[in-house]
Amino acid sequence: MGSSQRSTARDGFSNKLEFYALTHFQPVWGLLQRSSFLKKKTNGTLINRLIYKIPTRPYPFSTMAGYTSWASLNDRGYSGRHLPPSRRDPKALPPIDDVVQLFARKPDQTVLSPKSTLLFSHFAQWFTDGFLRTDRTDFLKNTSNHDIDLCTVYGLTRQVTDRIRSHEGGKLQSQMINDEEYPCYIFDEHGEVKSEYTELTTIFPEELEAARKGKLFAMGGDRANVQVGYAMLNTLFLREHNRLCEALARRHPSWDDERLFQTARNIVIVLVIKIVVEEYINHIAPYHFKFVLDTTGLKNARWYRQNWMSVEFSLVYRWHGMVPDHIDVAGERLPAEQTLFHSELLTSRGLGPLFEEASLQPAGEIGLFNTPRFLLEVERASILLGRTSRLASYNDYRELCKFPRVTDFDQISGNAEVQRALKKLYGHVDNVEFYVGIFAEDTRENSAVGSLIGRLVGIDAFSQALTNPLLSGHVFNARTFSKLGLATIAQTKTLSDVLHRNIPARDTRYKVSMTRLDWRESE
Amino acid sequence: MGSSQRSTARDGFSNKLEFYALTHFQPVWGLLQRSSFLKKKTNGTLINRLIYKIPTRPYPFSTMAGYTSWASLNDRGYSGRHLPPSRRDPKALPPIDDVVQLFARKPDQTVLSPKSTLLFSHFAQWFTDGFLRTDRTDFLKNTSNHDIDLCTVYGLTRQVTDRIRSHEGGKLQSQMINDEEYPCYIFDEHGEVKSEYTELTTIFPEELEAARKGKLFAMGGDRANVQVGYAMLNTLFLREHNRLCEALARRHPSWDDERLFQTARNIVIVLVIKIVVEEYINHIAPYHFKFVLDTTGLKNARWYRQNWMSVEFSLVYRWHGMVPDHIDVAGERLPAEQTLFHSELLTSRGLGPLFEEASLQPAGEIGLFNTPRFLLEVERASILLGRTSRLASYNDYRELCKFPRVTDFDQISGNAEVQRALKKLYGHVDNVEFYVGIFAEDTRENSAVGSLIGRLVGIDAFSQALTNPLLSGHVFNARTFSKLGLATIAQTKTLSDVLHRNIPARDTRYKVSMTRLDWRESE
Repeated sequence: MGSSQRSTARDGFSNKLEFYALTHFQPVWGLLQRSSFLKKKTNGTLINRLIYKIPTRPYPFSTMAGYTSWASLNDRGYSGRHLPPSRRDPKALPPIDDVVQLFARKPDQTVLSPKSTLLFSHFAQWFTDGFLRTDRTDFLKNTSNHDIDLCTVYGLTRQVTDRIRSHEGGKLQSQMINDEEYPCYIFDEHGEVKSEYTELTTIFPEELEAARKGKLFAMGGDRANVQVGYAMLNTLFLREHNRLCEALARRHPSWDDERLFQTARNIVIVLVIKIVVEEYINHIAPYHFKFVLDTTGLKNARWYRQNWMSVEFSLVYRWHGMVPDHIDVAGERLPAEQTLFHSELLTSRGLGPLFEEASLQPAGEIGLFNTPRFLLEVERASILLGRTSRLASYNDYRELCKFPRVTDFDQISGNAEVQRALKKLYGHVDNVEFYVGIFAEDTRENSAVGSLIGRLVGIDAFSQALTNPLLSGHVFNARTFSKLGLATIAQTKTLSDVLHRNIPARDTRYKVSMTRLDWRESE
Repeated sequence: MGSSQRSTARDGFSNKLEFYALTHFQPVWGLLQRSSFLKKKTNGTLINRLIYKIPTRPYPFSTMAGYTSWASLNDRGYSGRHLPPSRRDPKALPPIDDVVQLFARKPDQTVLSPKSTLLFSHFAQWFTDGFLRTDRTDFLKNTSNHDIDLCTVYGLTRQVTDRIRSHEGGKLQSQMINDEEYPCYIFDEHGEVKSEYTELTTIFPEELEAARKGKLFAMGGDRANVQVGYAMLNTLFLREHNRLCEALARRHPSWDDERLFQTARNIVIVLVIKIVVEEYINHIAPYHFKFVLDTTGLKNARWYRQNWMSVEFSLVYRWHGMVPDHIDVAGERLPAEQTLFHSELLTSRGLGPLFEEASLQPAGEIGLFNTPRFLLEVERASILLGRTSRLASYNDYRELCKFPRVTDFDQISGNAEVQRALKKLYGHVDNVEFYVGIFAEDTRENSAVGSLIGRLVGIDAFSQALTNPLLSGHVFNARTFSKLGLATIAQTKTLSDVLHRNIPARDTRYKVSMTRLDWRESE
């Protein structure tokens, strides 16, 4: 879906200017990033410029009610929202079945991302499942801790964490298969849940065949077995956690199990945040400037307020188009559905080869007409969430985010089919729903996502990742992480760094990348 | 306990200078406060100067453990702490019985405060019980919501709030006695808890006589019946809540019970915060400058972080010395114990006369040797809390708060008896416990409290009151409070304002004051 024919008439002058500056003058940006002082200064300035584009937390409204109350300001069991509920009549919206069809990928017509690999897709799913957690029994609620706390690995509650800890040397429970460390299995050889795991809330389909059920991993996150990529990342950070415990125990022989566990977790959380900023966000953004994890200039920020995941953040992150119809895994090309609840794919081949396979396969492109069939029901739920929470329109959110309102469909996408389909369903651009509009936008040049998704993801990500208490002034120090922990954090920038210290010595060096190896910037 | 003989050698030069500037040059301060712009600027500057004297939240440590973990950074069921646990051997501390005796008031030797009335004492107890809530089953834990949410009136949980709401017109349940509005009684005429109140966790002594038990009020706060002053303030804000509901319903006839309730609560919470800053804190502080509730200059403050009540804040606020042995109430002089769980004192006389009586009687002075007998067990619990949480010493906290460490007992108090008693128990000033040291300090000239208490109370109060979400940028507006609400907030500065719009028309104007009517600044 090339964006060549998209009209840029309503992109906004200052947006264009900013984008141009950030994507040109490579030598200047290069020079600037060679000075550590200038790099940190620019990092802070760019992050502030982005976040201040919309009003900062606390949100006056949540999904609890259409007005502000003490309960709505405090009960984070409901989701935050960036705009108050719309007063438009939801009955005027097009039939939901027709809207779902806007997302459906045509048989064998997967649109591939020129930039992103499947590893990027895996990471996005795994990472966001830690804090974007819509309650399936009530879409207006959530089960989020609202922080990057690696609940995917450690569990949402202390009860679950307790169940998956070994309670020796700070480590998480694990088993060795082919000399590699993996989470334990939930079920015993008789098909019964092992007694220590009865409190886990692991999700799997009732009809799952016995062989696969027997290989489900006992991990913190309830959805941790859903997809092979999720299990890969959980396994990687389980290994890193246990590796750190051993290293910490050598340096601090007096520390008990509890202190080793907690200190390793402190380190692992910050490692992931660092990878999010320095590998993942830099992959998404099309800029010459590469963001760094540094909060020195941001302590006095007005946006530095208690985290609260918003309903919009949850929707902008539904990147189903990235999932290809077939996935190369464990040496085979399998239909994507075959990679669900299938941890044997992982243990049969080993972690390193799977990371390489995911780094060599392109992800699908994020956008309309690219969601695989088996995820269309999730699209339906997403559209419904937008409607249940009475979200304002796509154009209203453009305005919130300092993009001019579009006046014609060709300003959203250059793709004639998208333009025709939107026009047919909505008649006028002002009627386009938020969830449809953001995915109808063409992916921005050299970026992994469209303009409005990019801005909203960036605002919510930076303003809720950098507020992590572990990064705060009197906490980010050797007392919290140990010297070893601080050194580990300083030396880690990418998933590749973490992987290569957690695979058997016999392994070779693997290609591990969120960016396609054949990707070249269009400039 | 005059401070004439106290040595000021270790007060610190910059502290002395600041104190001198703030307590002299009245004409300059007067001039400055005549300009609204300068007043707000100065207000912000003074508040920042105060709060930045110690490290800002997030605290690296809580009472959970001696090191930092994800759990300790997030579980506010444990209390925050400003300094890490001490490594001193608690066995080296003097016997707790001897320390308790440092607090005991001698028979008929109540030391009176030259500045504060009993109304100030009532307000302090009522107000702080809303957020300083040590868990009686485990001193290291708390049951606080960590915010000024008026849980004293509305209850700690939504379940409790639901039970005391009338669910009509937004109002709280109430009854009329002598044409005045009061909370309902918990027990019916047969001495049974009324069915709607079985979920309330109201605290009262098992041995309470039937007549008094029958008159216990059904209020949100579990301790709301403890003392007549507490019940007075709860009754006042119940009336204000219901009054606001009626006024809001007239202006907004389409609003349902829920919206009326929530909007009235929004307004009442901010009214109380305004009284806290503009009447209560200004009463405590000895400055010519009078603080105002204004957050315009403070949005970018590095201290503007999630609230977390600290164990030190809980201890500095135990002002048992303020409670006299006898209390003038309902036209009688009663032993203070007789005012506990005794709501009939209130209904027999009416709210206005009781506010006036409390405004005409002096409070006791805060300090050693001034705690009434019946509160000595609470002193013991307080000393024990300091020891259980392994608090650093008095001198360590002086250092934290930018006071030089004292080197002699005469730098703490000018009272020879206090000096002798401390020396006998602790030998060296470095050994003095936090809880003892802060109350051993002489009350600061023209202030209601000593220097270290003043600083710690001010830091925790300002940095956790001004962060209330209702005061934040996109929330403090007519959409949240209604125009009527904003006007009510603007017109309210004192308890007197609230009282006089909530008493029968037949009543006269009452004297309502936290400051003694005969108090004159010593300058």
